[in-house]
Amino acid sequence: MTAAVVSTDPRTGESVPVAPPTTDAEVEQTTRAAADAAAGLEALGRSGRAELLRAAAARLEANGSEIVATADLETAIGPDRLKGELARTTYQLRMFAEVAEEGSYLEATIDHAGDTPMGPGPDLRRMLVPLGPVAVFGASNFPLAFSVPGGDTASALAAGCPVVAKAHESHPATSLLAHRALREAAEQVGAPEGTVGIVLGREAGARLVADPRITAVGFTGSLSGARALQRIIDDRPDPIPFYGELSSINPLVVTEAAAAARGAAIAEGLVGSFTMAAGQLCTKPGLAFVPVGAAGDALVARMAELVADAPAKPLLNARIHESYAEIGGRLAGLDGVEVAGRGATDGTGFAAGAALLTVAAADLRPEVAQECFGPIAIAVRYDGTDDLLHALRALPSSLAAAVHAEESDDLDALLAVLRTRAGRVLFDGYPTGVLVAWAQTHGGPWPSTNTVHTSVGPTAIRRFLRPLTWQNAPERVLPPELRDAGPAIPRRIDGVLRLPR
Amino acid sequence: MTAAVVSTDPRTGESVPVAPPTTDAEVEQTTRAAADAAAGLEALGRSGRAELLRAAAARLEANGSEIVATADLETAIGPDRLKGELARTTYQLRMFAEVAEEGSYLEATIDHAGDTPMGPGPDLRRMLVPLGPVAVFGASNFPLAFSVPGGDTASALAAGCPVVAKAHESHPATSLLAHRALREAAEQVGAPEGTVGIVLGREAGARLVADPRITAVGFTGSLSGARALQRIIDDRPDPIPFYGELSSINPLVVTEAAAAARGAAIAEGLVGSFTMAAGQLCTKPGLAFVPVGAAGDALVARMAELVADAPAKPLLNARIHESYAEIGGRLAGLDGVEVAGRGATDGTGFAAGAALLTVAAADLRPEVAQECFGPIAIAVRYDGTDDLLHALRALPSSLAAAVHAEESDDLDALLAVLRTRAGRVLFDGYPTGVLVAWAQTHGGPWPSTNTVHTSVGPTAIRRFLRPLTWQNAPERVLPPELRDAGPAIPRRIDGVLRLPR
Repeated sequence: MTAAVVSTDPRTGESVPVAPPTTDAEVEQTTRAAADAAAGLEALGRSGRAELLRAAAARLEANGSEIVATADLETAIGPDRLKGELARTTYQLRMFAEVAEEGSYLEATIDHAGDTPMGPGPDLRRMLVPLGPVAVFGASNFPLAFSVPGGDTASALAAGCPVVAKAHESHPATSLLAHRALREAAEQVGAPEGTVGIVLGREAGARLVADPRITAVGFTGSLSGARALQRIIDDRPDPIPFYGELSSINPLVVTEAAAAARGAAIAEGLVGSFTMAAGQLCTKPGLAFVPVGAAGDALVARMAELVADAPAKPLLNARIHESYAEIGGRLAGLDGVEVAGRGATDGTGFAAGAALLTVAAADLRPEVAQECFGPIAIAVRYDGTDDLLHALRALPSSLAAAVHAEESDDLDALLAVLRTRAGRVLFDGYPTGVLVAWAQTHGGPWPSTNTVHTSVGPTAIRRFLRPLTWQNAPERVLPPELRDAGPAIPRRIDGVLRLPR
Repeated sequence: MTAAVVSTDPRTGESVPVAPPTTDAEVEQTTRAAADAAAGLEALGRSGRAELLRAAAARLEANGSEIVATADLETAIGPDRLKGELARTTYQLRMFAEVAEEGSYLEATIDHAGDTPMGPGPDLRRMLVPLGPVAVFGASNFPLAFSVPGGDTASALAAGCPVVAKAHESHPATSLLAHRALREAAEQVGAPEGTVGIVLGREAGARLVADPRITAVGFTGSLSGARALQRIIDDRPDPIPFYGELSSINPLVVTEAAAAARGAAIAEGLVGSFTMAAGQLCTKPGLAFVPVGAAGDALVARMAELVADAPAKPLLNARIHESYAEIGGRLAGLDGVEVAGRGATDGTGFAAGAALLTVAAADLRPEVAQECFGPIAIAVRYDGTDDLLHALRALPSSLAAAVHAEESDDLDALLAVLRTRAGRVLFDGYPTGVLVAWAQTHGGPWPSTNTVHTSVGPTAIRRFLRPLTWQNAPERVLPPELRDAGPAIPRRIDGVLRLPR
């Protein structure tokens, strides 16, 4: 008999069984239902899918107390943050409802037949169409907003793609509750039965990615997890798109002027940011570049004080707890790395203490500049602009990079480097906190992601769509959005982008 | 000493040396120059890059006679088709100049700071930015439009990405001439020196893809070639986006009504399409689904007559010539496959004769339904709608699928399948001939491509861009397109798409 999927309380380390893992036959049944649902979900239309997304948000809210309590038991994230995450999740679902209704995401384009410099041209009509069933692998650290009911699911459903979610080992019971809410929403609006499925267990996840009916994978997790899934995809007869948010160290640079002007405030902001959520956010500022000299010394000293006062907090699961101890310990032992401050380490279950390390920029090398999930950061002391730029150029890319500067600072050279190292560059703030908004980018060059798309915000929908062109098609076979008298959406007609009146 | 890269005349099979292959050190020098050019090319701005693209078009036209004559010697495509291809190429360059100027491709988006349901939101500004140096692998069958000065290069330069082209073995001399025109255009408009580079030789191509300065690869070629490049990319410390147009069989369906109404015309159109360019177009209709019965018999008989009358034509190179003989011979020998017609096979060099095979839909299996470059097609005889749909469902995906039907035909079930099997569905026409237009899609699910983008038309630019968000940035560091008083381009401001007045 296969061991049950369990729910583990990070505050105690104790586990209770939740459900048996999904069998091979059940995975196939689920993906088959998803494939069967694809045409019906698309036929629901943009307004029907908007209704589905809004119904899902309402169901999650209606079951909010149970969902938050369950998620707190499984993740120890705390009810307040989880309520906030639930609000983010429902906001995200409703935003994608608006995205579907607004319709610009279709890139609807009509080129009427006519003469061209290459001779007579046919009638061409193009829009983006859903890929088909999408597998969604949620994250340990956001049991809602980046998991079963999260951004990947919302954007895939808005696009018209059925979703099969893989429940994360860190929160299977929460995943099942969220799935039930989504499934009930689908029933309520008359969406096809296989619109939203779920599988449990690591093996089921691997089967899911290998399944021929799955057409794309959304993933938020570790580089090693992504590599394992990529290998499965590479072995498919038809490799499919794989959108992974992977690993990010998120450098934050404090200029000399900023350190002098407001070093203490930056120290507080930084420690608050890297210990938030026990340092388990993918946008945690892992490396803080602080100038050498008195102002920088004071900033680091203040950070060290705050870290020493920080209480131990439970990490999400046993794996993260172990790897925090292991990687954190290894980092602290590297040549040139010193421990500037350590927080309390008492606590039961998966509790862990905060830590602040320091290193000279000249000593920053790949084994130092690696992501470590948990409440740890490294202050990198740089001696002048050249030293700083040299160190930044050698960094892997991140989801975000931050600059604390004063008006007097010339930022050209710094930004020229930073913008090649991140998908979001922010000023006088902290990278944690990723607003769901049109102008958001949660993505960046490898290893932060393996894609040229964001996974947060409306444009995340582009990942689950492909272009399809109808050439000389009779009007009766065209989708409504491509008929001459189309709905009120932005369209490009004969080369000119037009807005609905 | 390493053997020189040679130019081979397909009409005779004779070769002359062109240049030594690019050494490892030269590859590195070229990619280094490309990386050094990236910031300057972006700083040229959209109008500067538009000027570059127009200057390139003008240079290619100015050197048109020499380019066409050289390409004809290397490819035997014929001066008329090559003149047409040159016109397509310059049109494409000028179209991307317009795309750069029009600016909607940037997806410029501004979300001003303000209250949100998740609390106060920062000022977020987002647009797409160039990835960096792009490696372009051209195709054997389009020495201009899909090679050094082709769509991948035009779209990458428009995006602001320097290009390093790998000269195709089938037309190295043409590639060098085209590269010279591009390089002179870059000089003329003051673009950085490394804006357009070129490498020769297979090993240099492999080095290019492995080079850490290359940030994306555009490729038009074979599935096996793509798999080899993908392995190199997988071995990089930072896997990069790889956009490949690979393999396509392009099914064409003739309904019973269409066969009855205009079988002879369809037979002529089909043979014209699959023997055009000696059958070496990626949109060649490789499988024609023809109903059983008298009308279908007559259609196939007419195709066989036309094939028998078709003259032998030289194929592009020795490899294609060999594989045409090998794959064509193997197909003809498969159980259930019959030879309905064969064209003349006389001819020197790489000349090859046309062939028409037939098979019953029930006998269509993967080894029959495979792409074979060259003037060969298979008429697949189907017996009723179920037989047809069953066969289509088992097909690999293609760049294009075509339907010949009458008004009386109910196409719903047929189109439901075809649209999952192609990036372009066309009606009462032939898939060869891919207009460069806004509404074009030259792409499709695996194995036709490995991407969710088109490689023809303005939206091909999306492949070489990634989103970047500036958060709470001082106006002075923002690109012009993201300042409040931006240039006259479409922008989304606080969630609402707006056009320039």
